[in-house]
Amino acid sequence: MSVMKVHGNSFSTSTQRVLAFLYEKDIEFQFVNVDMAAGEHKSENFLLLNPFGQVPAFEEGDLKLFESRAITEYIVQEYNDKGTQLLLPGSNKTMAVLQLWKEVEAHRFNPPSTKLVFELHYKPFFGMATDTAVVEESEAELAKVLDVYEARLAQSKYLACDHFTLADLHHLPNVHYLMGSSAKKLFDSRPHVSAWVADIMARPAWSKVLDKQKQ
Amino acid sequence: MSVMKVHGNSFSTSTQRVLAFLYEKDIEFQFVNVDMAAGEHKSENFLLLNPFGQVPAFEEGDLKLFESRAITEYIVQEYNDKGTQLLLPGSNKTMAVLQLWKEVEAHRFNPPSTKLVFELHYKPFFGMATDTAVVEESEAELAKVLDVYEARLAQSKYLACDHFTLADLHHLPNVHYLMGSSAKKLFDSRPHVSAWVADIMARPAWSKVLDKQKQ
Ligand SMILES: N[C@@H](CCC(=O)N[C@@H](CS)C(=O)NCC(=O)O)C(=O)O
Ligand SMILES: N[C@@H](CCC(=O)N[C@@H](CS)C(=O)NCC(=O)O)C(=O)O
Repeated sequence: MSVMKVHGNSFSTSTQRVLAFLYEKDIEFQFVNVDMAAGEHKSENFLLLNPFGQVPAFEEGDLKLFESRAITEYIVQEYNDKGTQLLLPGSNKTMAVLQLWKEVEAHRFNPPSTKLVFELHYKPFFGMATDTAVVEESEAELAKVLDVYEARLAQSKYLACDHFTLADLHHLPNVHYLMGSSAKKLFDSRPHVSAWVADIMARPAWSKVLDKQKQ
Repeated sequence: MSVMKVHGNSFSTSTQRVLAFLYEKDIEFQFVNVDMAAGEHKSENFLLLNPFGQVPAFEEGDLKLFESRAITEYIVQEYNDKGTQLLLPGSNKTMAVLQLWKEVEAHRFNPPSTKLVFELHYKPFFGMATDTAVVEESEAELAKVLDVYEARLAQSKYLACDHFTLADLHHLPNVHYLMGSSAKKLFDSRPHVSAWVADIMARPAWSKVLDKQKQ
């Protein structure tokens, strides 16, 4: 078994998704820091790992992957027995429900929340002006998604079932940055969403991701 | 085994993704037409099938799903032996490569191509004005994606491997509408992409989807 390598940056949300996952699974890996300020993610060598020039990228022996959710999916299948159980073992029917909520994260939650993290966190951080029209539109879109989550989380402790799965985990980086922004109100005003957010942010694996930023 | 029900509209790209898939897999299903012009997808009954009020939605006995790619993923696993082999049987490592290209479709190809289908096909169809700024930005984004596809398809007949898989299939509806629009040039100018488009659009399952629109 070759050691896993994660190429990424601890301030990137997509890298954080993979890091949180690896800490949950209690899997050893080598972290290769990509100096994004220096444009290392657009270098010739990095483009061999991810032709889109974005972090994270992943290697295990001959296997090269990118796209954070393709990386977590491979590892969760290959190392099913390690660390936290993040799947819904059982039939294809039970797995389908997990798949559904993973798709909801990818196609519903991720687009507006990524725009908000950019406008409300990264832009101010880099001294750029926030586009209030984008904020308004994305908040309205996210509010509708969180209404669906509120109804779902009234029936089920986590999105896919009564235990924490990959579907919940994939939300963590964007939820974290939005809870430190003016979009926090969208979560706070929905009691089940708010309890879910507090629960998933309190996971030790997530604290380890934040600790990594301090290194 | 209960009969599968697909609730959708044959003019919707996300419905077409599921239909093309079911024809490839040679699986019998019942199609329940959703009259979107009459707003049926926002009715109380439909919201029980998909709380986001969008087509398609899926039922098989007690199992209720939405999100087109969650539907194809469930069926491809449960009915692996039926019809066309759309997976990459083998190890988790071979499946990871398929998963990667499915993620690329979902996170790279789908966002700009969906915007272009809306601006260049649906808006003119409904007598609305195309937003040329959105077209320009989305074409530039799609061009970069197709550059990566061109390099990939120079090495491999299809995106994930040398046979047609779910990763290719998921592209069909948006590719179809873009090939009938001014964005066709983006595909035509890239020889491997162009051959791949011709190949996947010629699949009998895709003709059946187009025939369904005439019913
Ligand atoms: N869908 C991709 C998104 C990757 C992504 O957006 N990475 C960002 C950092 S979070 C990046 O590398 N941005 C630099 C750039 O786009 O040039 C994934 O989940 O891995
Ligand atoms: N990510 C969803 C997208 C579904 C979707 O956008 N459906 C469209 C038709 S293609 C729809 O129902 N639009 C009506 C609306 O949004 O009100 C999927 O893949 O199923």
